[in-house]
Amino acid sequence: MQPTQINGHRADGGYCLIVAQDLPSLYRLGIVGSSQIARMMHQSAVKLGITPRLFAERYDDSAAQAAPEAVFHHPDSLASFAEDCEVLTFEHERLDMGLLQAMEENGALLRPGTKTLRAAFDKLHQRLILRNRGFNVPAFAQVRGPDDLLDFASAYGFPLVLKSVRAAPPGGRGVWIVEGRSQAMRVLAEHGEQELMAEEHQQIIKEIVVIVVRRPGGNSRCYPIAEVSSQDGIAREIRAPADLGNRLAAEARDLAKRLADDLDAVGVLAVEMFLTTEGLVINELAARPHNAGHFTIEGTPTSQFENHVRAVLDLPLGPTWSLAPAAVTVNVLGTIDGVDPAQHLPDALIIEGAHIHLYGKIPRAGRKLGHVTVLSDDMDQARELARRADAALHGRRPL
Amino acid sequence: MQPTQINGHRADGGYCLIVAQDLPSLYRLGIVGSSQIARMMHQSAVKLGITPRLFAERYDDSAAQAAPEAVFHHPDSLASFAEDCEVLTFEHERLDMGLLQAMEENGALLRPGTKTLRAAFDKLHQRLILRNRGFNVPAFAQVRGPDDLLDFASAYGFPLVLKSVRAAPPGGRGVWIVEGRSQAMRVLAEHGEQELMAEEHQQIIKEIVVIVVRRPGGNSRCYPIAEVSSQDGIAREIRAPADLGNRLAAEARDLAKRLADDLDAVGVLAVEMFLTTEGLVINELAARPHNAGHFTIEGTPTSQFENHVRAVLDLPLGPTWSLAPAAVTVNVLGTIDGVDPAQHLPDALIIEGAHIHLYGKIPRAGRKLGHVTVLSDDMDQARELARRADAALHGRRPL
Repeated sequence: MQPTQINGHRADGGYCLIVAQDLPSLYRLGIVGSSQIARMMHQSAVKLGITPRLFAERYDDSAAQAAPEAVFHHPDSLASFAEDCEVLTFEHERLDMGLLQAMEENGALLRPGTKTLRAAFDKLHQRLILRNRGFNVPAFAQVRGPDDLLDFASAYGFPLVLKSVRAAPPGGRGVWIVEGRSQAMRVLAEHGEQELMAEEHQQIIKEIVVIVVRRPGGNSRCYPIAEVSSQDGIAREIRAPADLGNRLAAEARDLAKRLADDLDAVGVLAVEMFLTTEGLVINELAARPHNAGHFTIEGTPTSQFENHVRAVLDLPLGPTWSLAPAAVTVNVLGTIDGVDPAQHLPDALIIEGAHIHLYGKIPRAGRKLGHVTVLSDDMDQARELARRADAALHGRRPL
Repeated sequence: MQPTQINGHRADGGYCLIVAQDLPSLYRLGIVGSSQIARMMHQSAVKLGITPRLFAERYDDSAAQAAPEAVFHHPDSLASFAEDCEVLTFEHERLDMGLLQAMEENGALLRPGTKTLRAAFDKLHQRLILRNRGFNVPAFAQVRGPDDLLDFASAYGFPLVLKSVRAAPPGGRGVWIVEGRSQAMRVLAEHGEQELMAEEHQQIIKEIVVIVVRRPGGNSRCYPIAEVSSQDGIAREIRAPADLGNRLAAEARDLAKRLADDLDAVGVLAVEMFLTTEGLVINELAARPHNAGHFTIEGTPTSQFENHVRAVLDLPLGPTWSLAPAAVTVNVLGTIDGVDPAQHLPDALIIEGAHIHLYGKIPRAGRKLGHVTVLSDDMDQARELARRADAALHGRRPL
């Protein structure tokens, strides 16, 4: 057991540092990605005595700061990284599916596998699979140019939704609601280099996320359903359980479980749904722990991160029930004035019962820098405290 | 922001690897020590967006495995380590008090400071302070040789307690209950190179630990009192709250708080007490998060680790109330057959509601390799589940 160490410079000029240690862990887990989702996965694995390796982008990424086994990579080195891991899991969807497919064919154990990842990675492919299997999705069409768009608009009218087929980069935008022809052409002119698709605009009553976690054998569990309030396309506040009623909640859970089975999902599958005037419609999938599930850290006996780690290592899943009647999470977002919430930590920690999580990220407008969760017997009280803590982290008096 | 890296070999032949990164943390916290207590402190700091540096002994120590900012040190380098930290805190009591004193005089911010550390470091000094300030301690005397011992025995009789004045090394033994003269002489012959002391043997009804956490200004909070069941001098099972009755519980809490104030403690002060036929007697002090407080991770809104980090950084303390009527922690100890509990993780994770923590340590007999906490409405049920999970981790069927 000697630390091995390789240093070098990446082709793009970035610094590359590899500290690989042969630690006495039975479970050699590799995590692809290094933002806060990977950071919280890492923390959960450490609790179980497992030190995962991270395939990180930068040494100061949120997860790389908190993990000694971080490899600051050249993207091409993923296959060799995988050789040092028994199981590889993923924090995001910005993946080279061709490479992953080849790795899987060569025997790499990807959890989830490419069948699931492809559905999260490519929204057009996802819509096709879902529709073919009888799941409820909005009307959609590929948009290769103005003609496709105008055809779709003449069938479904404006407003309509234009979407990037691939997952947006962190902080990037991938969804535009366009009100008419000229706005549609503008988006197309600006973003036409991406693969785009059009979708029918939904009358959204609620946005919910159903988080299901599934083991390779098929055993799965569902978390309390989360209800999301977004602003400018960014989730601001998450409440659990969602205010849905028993029948709809059961339908949503059933839908998510069937989908997880259908896609052979392993680990967390987060199913974003809209409740519309016409019922539940699937919006998006994420094949990883989801921002809307941060409440599970304090709000359930086993967080989505721990259960994801358990699932991808094929370990028994932990309970997912609610520990409190109401949980509210507020995302702490960077503001244009560049305030660092870490600077205001003392003001936020005063608020009793607010669980403050900061990710160690450099503040930028709109960037998720942390979150606050409050558990309570009462949803309004939880929300009030969580908002107060968020305001304090921004150096503001409560609203 | 470039990673700095220094490699080298320690004088004693051990490998030394320093990866110091200039991360965007406002709070430059250094932790001296690298076992599981440091590991859990580190996890709590990361949650708050803070990446502490560790002054570690070996790269495969429990905390060093989970922390990128680990410095594998030569003991003499503590002062230079401290220069890179704003605040230094401690995981254990095996410290060079002279060096710390000098560092403190040179302006290093030690939390707790040497006044507190000395009381935890030197049990004879501790007894003297406590007696002088009117706290209830057993009769004691320094033992420089057989004469001191026999004098003490003729005054207080056998059995008596012989103790090492300094904290025992991990897995080492520091307390001997001697039944008579010949056994006493044997202990003296074997351990006489250490500073020893004698104490009157107590009729112990219960062993409890009161964990208080205190900020520099004096603000302090007490956790639910823990009751400890030991076997062969090693804590096996911890139950919270202790079965004490209101009057005694209030007395114990009051005592711990007064002691923390008296010693200017900062961070966690764990006060081990015996309930004897003559009331509460102070047994030992630890100026750091304590093994008996692991239940606070799931059992209270703010773990002892997070509150220790908050306190030493002079941040507001979080709530310390109980989240369940009963919490039981069982320590997972290494057995002589060398079984690695990580190997039996799948069997233990099946037990619903058992929170499994493994420390990534190499199994050795008697070594603390992890712990299991169960919360319940009922103490017996919590204990039953925690024991079952511990048995599973050892590859045994439940008792």
